[in-house]
Amino acid sequence: MEYRPYSRRVNYYETDQMAIVHHSNYIRWFEEARLDFLDQVGLNYREMEKSGLIVPVVDVSCRYHVSAKYDDLMDIYAYLTSFNGVRMDYRYEVRFHDSGVLSADGISSHCFLDEKRHPVIVKRRDPALFARLKELVEKN
Amino acid sequence: MEYRPYSRRVNYYETDQMAIVHHSNYIRWFEEARLDFLDQVGLNYREMEKSGLIVPVVDVSCRYHVSAKYDDLMDIYAYLTSFNGVRMDYRYEVRFHDSGVLSADGISSHCFLDEKRHPVIVKRRDPALFARLKELVEKN
Amino acid sequence: MEYRPYSRRVNYYETDQMAIVHHSNYIRWFEEARLDFLDQVGLNYREMEKSGLIVPVVDVSCRYHVSAKYDDLMDIYAYLTSFNGVRMDYRYEVRFHDSGVLSADGISSHCFLDEKRHPVIVKRRDPALFARLKELVEKN
Amino acid sequence: MEYRPYSRRVNYYETDQMAIVHHSNYIRWFEEARLDFLDQVGLNYREMEKSGLIVPVVDVSCRYHVSAKYDDLMDIYAYLTSFNGVRMDYRYEVRFHDSGVLSADGISSHCFLDEKRHPVIVKRRDPALFARLKELVEKN
Repeated sequence: MEYRPYSRRVNYYETDQMAIVHHSNYIRWFEEARLDFLDQVGLNYREMEKSGLIVPVVDVSCRYHVSAKYDDLMDIYAYLTSFNGVRMDYRYEVRFHDSGVLSADGISSHCFLDEKRHPVIVKRRDPALFARLKELVEKN
Repeated sequence: MEYRPYSRRVNYYETDQMAIVHHSNYIRWFEEARLDFLDQVGLNYREMEKSGLIVPVVDVSCRYHVSAKYDDLMDIYAYLTSFNGVRMDYRYEVRFHDSGVLSADGISSHCFLDEKRHPVIVKRRDPALFARLKELVEKN
Repeated sequence: MEYRPYSRRVNYYETDQMAIVHHSNYIRWFEEARLDFLDQVGLNYREMEKSGLIVPVVDVSCRYHVSAKYDDLMDIYAYLTSFNGVRMDYRYEVRFHDSGVLSADGISSHCFLDEKRHPVIVKRRDPALFARLKELVEKN
Repeated sequence: MEYRPYSRRVNYYETDQMAIVHHSNYIRWFEEARLDFLDQVGLNYREMEKSGLIVPVVDVSCRYHVSAKYDDLMDIYAYLTSFNGVRMDYRYEVRFHDSGVLSADGISSHCFLDEKRHPVIVKRRDPALFARLKELVEKN
């Protein structure tokens, strides 16, 4: 299966008075692309939460290179870079769709919690999810 | 007890490329002022949700008069205008703190739901809340 | 030309702790659909602003019927309902893509300002835009 | 002069369906605290932008420790940690006001641009700002 980057236009309400996208929105775009990636590989996050698993962010960072502007079409690439059974890491690239130029890149790290917000050993709780995430990291 | 309007500065991230506050943020300011009003009259909304009552918005509107800009100090007035036991209505005024000039005004309407998202008869479920809301409307 | 509604999924960051879309986001979706509509009819708003014309919101309202949730695919319909040369009005319907059920509907009104934020007589400043908007209202 | 941390309550619209603050909002709180810090030391950012200087973010990161919830009162500390004449760096701590417990911490880096979005040598363009920022870093 071929991975498609997540594509979306910059919304007007995402700009600030510098006439560029407010930097906090890139963190939101990372989330959009990450959840779209999970959906593409058969791990729909809505279903995951319904099963009682939540996957909060424990670390995020972003470097800004070229500002995106209103109406620009952006491609956001999300890559699962590591998974050790209790934590997973992603890397992101935000590129202008037309030129391929890098607008920003970053990372995020996530843990796994159950309904009571206690840490989860993924291998014990959901072996299929464990196997799939391991497989996805190896492919990368 | 004297009602204090809710005061807050305009955040940079609330501006858009017109160099004014994006209009959607006024809807959020209405919420800030409404929940602050409820807190002032002893009806903390966090406690209300803990007791299983949620109070979603069913109607909202806003008219924009003079644009607020980054760093402006704004006073937001929330008035409970009606309550009939299953629905309550608010009116809002957003004013520049320094001049008193009206930036925007609006209204919102709310219903009451229980944990299962079913409509609630407030008088039956929480007579004290019913009495307090009735009293607040009459005072206005 | 056939008008396509604006389609988009609900983002995770658009939900609140009621586990539904925060109501303020519908105001943002109206904007997304309105600017997409303008683009479809050849009136790209980025180009409009570049030409020195800005079109702020002077009035907005929204009624909420059925809550949208994370990952729901929504169709947002924007209709230009009136234009009198100094002001234009839109009506919106937000529908669940799969069922067609109405999630929310609303309206917005807009004025036209120049670079100095002075009101603009559209017919004088931009006769082509005037004619196009008139034509679009009549079609509706 | 004594530095006061920036204090604010968590807004309802800042929560997500995990019933905690959406992580992207911490990046916005960093901005609120940073601009408040600058204001406290006599460097109002609104004035800075009026003078033609803009100070975009080039790097940001945040580690999340204990989730903030709706209505929690948070203290956000912003520290200017370095300034070399073309770039400045901040460190942040987000603490629960009541307990002092660390909710999150992070950093941001910034460059200086002029009206045409060209890099600025602060010492040449605004010697007073240069001196003040140098002084603030040494104090820390």
